[in-house]
Amino acid sequence: MGATDAAAAREIAVDLAAIRAAHARIRPHIHRTPVLTSRSLDAAAEATLFFKCENLQKVGAFKARGACNAVFSLDDAESRRGVVTHSSGNHGAAVAWAAARRGIPAWVVMPENSAAVKKAAVRGLGATVRFCAPTLEARDTTCVAVQAETGALLVHPYDDWRVIAGQGTAALELLEQISDLDAIITPVGGGGLLSGTAIAARGVSPSIRVYGAEPAGADDAWRSLQRGQLVPQTDPRTIADGLRSSLGVKTFAVLSTLVDAIGTTSEDAIVQAMRLTWDKLKLIIEPSSAVPLAALLERKLPVAGLRVGIVISGGNVDLDRLPWQP
Amino acid sequence: MGATDAAAAREIAVDLAAIRAAHARIRPHIHRTPVLTSRSLDAAAEATLFFKCENLQKVGAFKARGACNAVFSLDDAESRRGVVTHSSGNHGAAVAWAAARRGIPAWVVMPENSAAVKKAAVRGLGATVRFCAPTLEARDTTCVAVQAETGALLVHPYDDWRVIAGQGTAALELLEQISDLDAIITPVGGGGLLSGTAIAARGVSPSIRVYGAEPAGADDAWRSLQRGQLVPQTDPRTIADGLRSSLGVKTFAVLSTLVDAIGTTSEDAIVQAMRLTWDKLKLIIEPSSAVPLAALLERKLPVAGLRVGIVISGGNVDLDRLPWQP
Repeated sequence: MGATDAAAAREIAVDLAAIRAAHARIRPHIHRTPVLTSRSLDAAAEATLFFKCENLQKVGAFKARGACNAVFSLDDAESRRGVVTHSSGNHGAAVAWAAARRGIPAWVVMPENSAAVKKAAVRGLGATVRFCAPTLEARDTTCVAVQAETGALLVHPYDDWRVIAGQGTAALELLEQISDLDAIITPVGGGGLLSGTAIAARGVSPSIRVYGAEPAGADDAWRSLQRGQLVPQTDPRTIADGLRSSLGVKTFAVLSTLVDAIGTTSEDAIVQAMRLTWDKLKLIIEPSSAVPLAALLERKLPVAGLRVGIVISGGNVDLDRLPWQP
Repeated sequence: MGATDAAAAREIAVDLAAIRAAHARIRPHIHRTPVLTSRSLDAAAEATLFFKCENLQKVGAFKARGACNAVFSLDDAESRRGVVTHSSGNHGAAVAWAAARRGIPAWVVMPENSAAVKKAAVRGLGATVRFCAPTLEARDTTCVAVQAETGALLVHPYDDWRVIAGQGTAALELLEQISDLDAIITPVGGGGLLSGTAIAARGVSPSIRVYGAEPAGADDAWRSLQRGQLVPQTDPRTIADGLRSSLGVKTFAVLSTLVDAIGTTSEDAIVQAMRLTWDKLKLIIEPSSAVPLAALLERKLPVAGLRVGIVISGGNVDLDRLPWQP
């Protein structure tokens, strides 16, 4: 570990004990998702794969874990203020769901051009939707405005230690369910899932290898780790809509310290891996969830012959239009 | 139980002990599939539902259980003769898979107009495909011809006690996984799954209600039970391609004795239930597997407020063309 890594490590405020505490906190609310295997996918990847099915989680994504941990970590006085977040995707639904479980108000800031079905889903879970222009700046300023107006507390989609600890509980369960894993891979967008996974996995099994996988068209994590400094994602181009965000300060610190490598994948491989998973595992997964398998199909990560855990991140897709259809 | 039922009961050659023995025999080869739940599906059905996910089974269907039990029940001399069956669907793949596991030859008789992907799947599992004209008669005569020519032993898709015992192991697991079920529902085509399920469920829990669900456009089981005699299916009209067969003599005997009712469903409800399952459970299921939920959406079975197990039978669908797409 170099001087920079050591500095980064000092900033990491979550450890295995915190992830175990998060698990105890959220366990009554979440599904303990199953782990599935497939010999044909093993053959395609030349490794033995164990898929942790967070597409079968509440709200159809691992995001339920982090949001639930953040919301149930609030003390009573804080909780009465309610929570706010910005997300056009799974994190918005997860915060709405977790707030409803606790019986507190939630506001979700979404770009005005979000899909109608996503707006309806968040409203159906009882949250108030606030629209903003489809830019990063508008998202942040609208979120700050909602906080100022309502007193609600921010639950950031990934750069929040409570959220990171919650996301780490998926790997904690996977390591309980499957013994002797040599490596674990998750998709990386903002880095919350990969950060929690790395802390949990290295805590339980110090020699395990931890990898991220991201689209070549949104490879800010790969570039950030290469350069040793946070490189924001501009102009992401990928079908994997959950992976278009930039790393945050906290997730960059964790990834710099605990992640062995990031594999980047082509769009063709993502669609191929998505379809292969639908076909062989009989699971609905969203494009972002196919990225780790895509990295293995393209031999971008050194796991030949190993026992590899993969976190399938979510299953929320438009069933009217599939990426392999004309 | 009337005189006819008593006569039927005497013909039933499988009991709970036989299903337990089948389970011990096939357990090293099959997946113990998970059981999933969904609050939104519970709300839609007005019952508490537990889905036993046989779409996640080997070859993507419960058929792996029955075929495996039949193939591994053969003694060594028998097994050297190999096995033959007729099926354009999941049973053909299941027999091919089970024979390959045991290292014995398999022949699968398929209509010459079967989908190319199904022919390829059976061949990919190592079986020899024999084509026949797309009629019931041609299927049977071709199967007899293959037996005569090769000496292979028939593994009928459903009217075979070893197959029925194997299919019953899914319910046996479900009853171990979930306690206090009030009722259990499976789709009914030839009746092998429903027969095995009824014997297992009534054996474990005599007061449990056992229901079948079938398309109104292929309702021979409903008509047979109404009339008290086997009414063959002619001209089936349903998207649920796994449920177009007629009951057999053995499965009719079991259903007459042990099944409480059959619910019949519209084609619209089948497609709606299939899409709802994809959307909420994030599972790829084939149309036949959606029929029990369709029967509940149409309130065709009296399970309001009950704890209900549903066996999801399979997940083999054409991903290029979905029934809700134009």
